[in-house]
Amino acid sequence: MTKRVGKQTLYLPSAPAVLGYAAVAGKKEGEGPLRERFDYIGEDSYFGEKSWEKAESHMLKQCFELACDKAKLPPSELDYVLAGDLLNQCVSSAFAMRDCSVPYLGLYGACSTMAEGLSLAALLVDGGYADQACALTGSHFCTAERQYRFPLEYGGQRTPSSQWTVTGAGAVILGGQGSIRVTHVTHGKIVDAGIKDPNNMGSAMAPAAFDTIRAHFRDTGRSPADYDAIITGDLGALGHDILAALFKADGVELGPCYMDCGVLIYDLNTQNVNAGGSGCGCSASVLSGHILKAMEDGVWRRVLFAATGALMSPTSSQQGESIPGICHALVLEREA
Amino acid sequence: MTKRVGKQTLYLPSAPAVLGYAAVAGKKEGEGPLRERFDYIGEDSYFGEKSWEKAESHMLKQCFELACDKAKLPPSELDYVLAGDLLNQCVSSAFAMRDCSVPYLGLYGACSTMAEGLSLAALLVDGGYADQACALTGSHFCTAERQYRFPLEYGGQRTPSSQWTVTGAGAVILGGQGSIRVTHVTHGKIVDAGIKDPNNMGSAMAPAAFDTIRAHFRDTGRSPADYDAIITGDLGALGHDILAALFKADGVELGPCYMDCGVLIYDLNTQNVNAGGSGCGCSASVLSGHILKAMEDGVWRRVLFAATGALMSPTSSQQGESIPGICHALVLEREA
Repeated sequence: MTKRVGKQTLYLPSAPAVLGYAAVAGKKEGEGPLRERFDYIGEDSYFGEKSWEKAESHMLKQCFELACDKAKLPPSELDYVLAGDLLNQCVSSAFAMRDCSVPYLGLYGACSTMAEGLSLAALLVDGGYADQACALTGSHFCTAERQYRFPLEYGGQRTPSSQWTVTGAGAVILGGQGSIRVTHVTHGKIVDAGIKDPNNMGSAMAPAAFDTIRAHFRDTGRSPADYDAIITGDLGALGHDILAALFKADGVELGPCYMDCGVLIYDLNTQNVNAGGSGCGCSASVLSGHILKAMEDGVWRRVLFAATGALMSPTSSQQGESIPGICHALVLEREA
Repeated sequence: MTKRVGKQTLYLPSAPAVLGYAAVAGKKEGEGPLRERFDYIGEDSYFGEKSWEKAESHMLKQCFELACDKAKLPPSELDYVLAGDLLNQCVSSAFAMRDCSVPYLGLYGACSTMAEGLSLAALLVDGGYADQACALTGSHFCTAERQYRFPLEYGGQRTPSSQWTVTGAGAVILGGQGSIRVTHVTHGKIVDAGIKDPNNMGSAMAPAAFDTIRAHFRDTGRSPADYDAIITGDLGALGHDILAALFKADGVELGPCYMDCGVLIYDLNTQNVNAGGSGCGCSASVLSGHILKAMEDGVWRRVLFAATGALMSPTSSQQGESIPGICHALVLEREA
């Protein structure tokens, strides 16, 4: 059976199932609209560790262990962990997993990492290469601020288009049996619209989301009406509206089923996050904390999850480069 | 047909074939023992660009285009590019591929990236998810020095155990028909032996290579006698000897068929590289410049390629952490 649908989409005949998932969040995220949805909320930004980098790693490990517990699987029964993060050399993932003794595939998809990892985990299970595989990622506001922007103590001003890096993590374990399944994957191309402002990630990433989701509709013959929810990763309020406008100009109304994780995770009116949330932990914790629960509860049956990433670095911005974006999408479907 | 062999190894029933490959190297690498083997040697460390980071990206793009040319495939016929590098946020790969319009999967496997990317490309082709897929990676001495160690102008002293980051890139395209095939993959676990000296990567990574290669032998029932060559990624002279000693203590003689890319790429007596080469470009350019050519020329029929990576960052070392290592292995076999 061919698994390629059109030019860019894959159909997964065995439809790997969600065996377990967990979301861990920071204090600020635990005060937002999704506060009841996370498995654990850390009140201390250090998560009991001596540095924020170690805290990020701690949070990832905790999230991984929670997902294993909820799936009733010891880590030793996993065939793969696919993980990545925003820290230089992806150290928070590597250090989180260094004692778990499971084959490890390191990814770098920036904030699209949950969709990249989950889709690859789905292919590994669908292809018969793994019985169980876990996708894991997260981010931490304090490590991201000092790596990408300024030391926190500097108290830098934030532009209205800037987004707030989510302190949070998500882990999803896929395998053979379960009620929520991954049926299709559309991996994205790099799209660079020429945006150079690292405080305007939503605008930089929206064209990539447009490219991937449009390819998904083209390949599958589907439209927004075929989905109960279409949820992008972390475009924030600005990127959300740009994506809706790009589709409108293309003759497609995304409508009220279109949402963005960066808008869902905070109260944009009261939480002082400007355009919304971002970071690997944004789509990861919203997927594992909110989307999968809403599907389990019967709110949504078929969801297009499309996480977005900005593939720049402080060095590339300092050298005058624009910001390439990417978006990977996958279809989650609850059995009737 | 089950594709899992033992606990950690995959057997690929369709044995994806090498359609094309290319290697680009820097000046110093072009003066070493493999000087005749590279497709292009850059005489200028800037590769005509304004910064070394842009040079690294330029080199990757050039290598990708050479591999497409040699495979007689336009990039538009590729279904995937899998790429990664050592720069923060893997920018050299992302910027190299931002105009190529091929679905992109970003990886972070440190210096194991070629084995990670090539093995995943093999699974995508074997599983029917891609007709053609390219694995691409590289590194640059000057970007690595200033990111990991000191500005070049500082002229820091190098310890005897230190390795020299290879300026080089490699690209391999897999697909359906060809004489050299990927038959097995063994993905590695993270192994942390407690080494904390970032100038001694060979010692930090050798235990990971031991873990993965031993798992490969255990799962397949093979021994070193089944291979014409067993080639690790970038353990260097020190790591090479540690790995041989670890196997010897385990009752296995690796013998003269065991080599290391970090030893092969330089003349360790005259090129002032201390323990040898390292970096993503080390195993990538030796694979694409030397190993695949030697297989084509009939020197070797069956090769175990086992690239190694050190999953640390300058920040993790500054915070007193040890260096986790990883090693991914795959079997390349020429049809009789």
